[in-house]
Amino acid sequence: MTELPDDEMDYRKRQHRVSQALDVRHLDALLVTHMPNIRYLCGFTGSAGMLLVADGRSTFFTDGRYREQGRSEVQGAGVVVPKGPVLDAVARAVAVSRVKTVGVEGEHMSVAAETKVARILRSKARVRQTRRLVEEHRMVKEPAEVERLRAAVRLGSSLFDKAVAVIRPGVTERAVAAELEYAARCAGAAGMAFETIVAAGRRSALPHGLASLQPIPRRGFVVLDFGVILAGYCSDMTRTVYVGKPGAEARRLYQAVWDAQQAAIAAVRPGRTVGEVDRAARSVLRRAGLARYFTHSTGHGVGLEIHEPPRIAREEEDVLRPGMVITIEPGAYVPGYGGVRIEDMVVVTSTSCEVLTPTTKEFLTLRESGPVVCS
Amino acid sequence: MTELPDDEMDYRKRQHRVSQALDVRHLDALLVTHMPNIRYLCGFTGSAGMLLVADGRSTFFTDGRYREQGRSEVQGAGVVVPKGPVLDAVARAVAVSRVKTVGVEGEHMSVAAETKVARILRSKARVRQTRRLVEEHRMVKEPAEVERLRAAVRLGSSLFDKAVAVIRPGVTERAVAAELEYAARCAGAAGMAFETIVAAGRRSALPHGLASLQPIPRRGFVVLDFGVILAGYCSDMTRTVYVGKPGAEARRLYQAVWDAQQAAIAAVRPGRTVGEVDRAARSVLRRAGLARYFTHSTGHGVGLEIHEPPRIAREEEDVLRPGMVITIEPGAYVPGYGGVRIEDMVVVTSTSCEVLTPTTKEFLTLRESGPVVCS
Repeated sequence: MTELPDDEMDYRKRQHRVSQALDVRHLDALLVTHMPNIRYLCGFTGSAGMLLVADGRSTFFTDGRYREQGRSEVQGAGVVVPKGPVLDAVARAVAVSRVKTVGVEGEHMSVAAETKVARILRSKARVRQTRRLVEEHRMVKEPAEVERLRAAVRLGSSLFDKAVAVIRPGVTERAVAAELEYAARCAGAAGMAFETIVAAGRRSALPHGLASLQPIPRRGFVVLDFGVILAGYCSDMTRTVYVGKPGAEARRLYQAVWDAQQAAIAAVRPGRTVGEVDRAARSVLRRAGLARYFTHSTGHGVGLEIHEPPRIAREEEDVLRPGMVITIEPGAYVPGYGGVRIEDMVVVTSTSCEVLTPTTKEFLTLRESGPVVCS
Repeated sequence: MTELPDDEMDYRKRQHRVSQALDVRHLDALLVTHMPNIRYLCGFTGSAGMLLVADGRSTFFTDGRYREQGRSEVQGAGVVVPKGPVLDAVARAVAVSRVKTVGVEGEHMSVAAETKVARILRSKARVRQTRRLVEEHRMVKEPAEVERLRAAVRLGSSLFDKAVAVIRPGVTERAVAAELEYAARCAGAAGMAFETIVAAGRRSALPHGLASLQPIPRRGFVVLDFGVILAGYCSDMTRTVYVGKPGAEARRLYQAVWDAQQAAIAAVRPGRTVGEVDRAARSVLRRAGLARYFTHSTGHGVGLEIHEPPRIAREEEDVLRPGMVITIEPGAYVPGYGGVRIEDMVVVTSTSCEVLTPTTKEFLTLRESGPVVCS
């Protein structure tokens, strides 16, 4: 299912690290139910299954739909395809093991599912919530993961030109998204990492303005926020262009957001907290009198998921470490007027960070007619 | 954000029905956290927020990113954009109300979130899990919803021809998906309802064979399973074609699955259980000696979500009611050889059901070269 062999990923090592984290928490096993965590730990890319990680022995449980795929993809764990419900099979496995205390992923298991797990496992083991146990490890990317992220970012960046080539007054936001997504697929992307945002004119003031059927107006900002999935890893970037001739106000808004983004990037280094990075962006916008228009956090981790820890937000205290890959994406959104957001992906290095996104951040103004789209 | 005005949806009526369901369960309010349920009850289409439904008074809470969108979309509820965390604002609202017992959506709230809710609300109200409370209502579609589903299905079906036009040996599965998804966007779809499945040759034996970079072989089945989102509602269809000249075994496999699908459709009528529908498909495949190759359930509800109750599965006992919209999609997957799945969407009528998907189910064999794709 994946484009590249996953042999370069050392699943046993990852499982071993999780086992060590279990020891510290006095847990005998972890029932992993969050699919990206399962993929991280054993390579399974499907959409249903559970991984039981216990010291020195992991087992992946899935249903009949994934029999073939499970057997071909899963590494470092046995594969069980029970006849009945998967959870019952997990309970049986726990019953015949020495496992007395099982951790579950509190952030990724519904209350209803946890109630069921606790009921089924009741006589066999105690169930305890864990928090971000696998994510703590996923936050710091291995070199092979950084390479995949780099490839995804490169593919993502190549789409920006495709989008710019078709943006002109009268073309719908959705048609721009269509061209961009088509180019992504043709370049080999497994899909988009999230719903493409194309927000033009006044709609650019909506931080999450999904590409609508509204035509691009004769004048104003166009925010493009998009990402691809390539070999399992996500890219994420935002650029804002201007259709028509921008006035001084538009130029000032763009420059302020760009300055804020640069300040945040300059603040990224090992040992700093993510809160400091957020505040670096925020203080630039405050000095420009735009603080109240920056209505979201500065960024987030990216990897197997488009949003994963850490959150780059004021109140967060995660400490940056080499190998973390995060987005830096401040914005300013003036209701009734328009908005600007600029976003790169960066990887934390041993001394500072490297910007992965190669696309220019110069203020692009578009006046030419593009080619016909969606013919 | 939506393509059609949502005025035709009577949000107050829906909230009123939920209020009545709360009364029966001795709950004073419901904290709705599942986004499709929020959309159903108040029209908000964004990705973050909570809706507190209490008798005669509902309040929608969201964050700064969705201030504008919340105000323009939400109907039948007040909109609050607190400075601090949304959950704290919910707790304050509960504290100043007469609400003593709050229901939460056990299937859609993580254990971690529920722990937090219970802690924050502790002194103000009791928190109790509910199950499928809003979904019970969503299962039966209103006429305006059936119309939207019909429009989504129509758009989805129109894509099948686009895909067939480019399928030929040597073209990658992903290129076929690219053409199909591009056509969807150009026809106005907000996006795909799920990751497009294009599974050719031996990969057709994978029930969830996402479009890969593998080229279509000279001979074998190609399973196409795809759906669009249009005006918030999802479509879902599967057709299986054959590249090259099929032998007797391939024809027999196709015919058996088609017969099973027809039998299941014939079994759909008000008053029947979904389990009976599943068994109708399964018994046809059993008689053909293919029971062990049908490794999933027969279908599922479709609406604002691609998968929603009821599940059309052996052990399920939901009773079919007029207005329910479900998929009927049996399949047979022979490892190492190939697989077939045929899927329609149907709406339960007062006496039986109407098949919404207009695409032919005749066994299509493709031999001609298609046009060049991803040029």
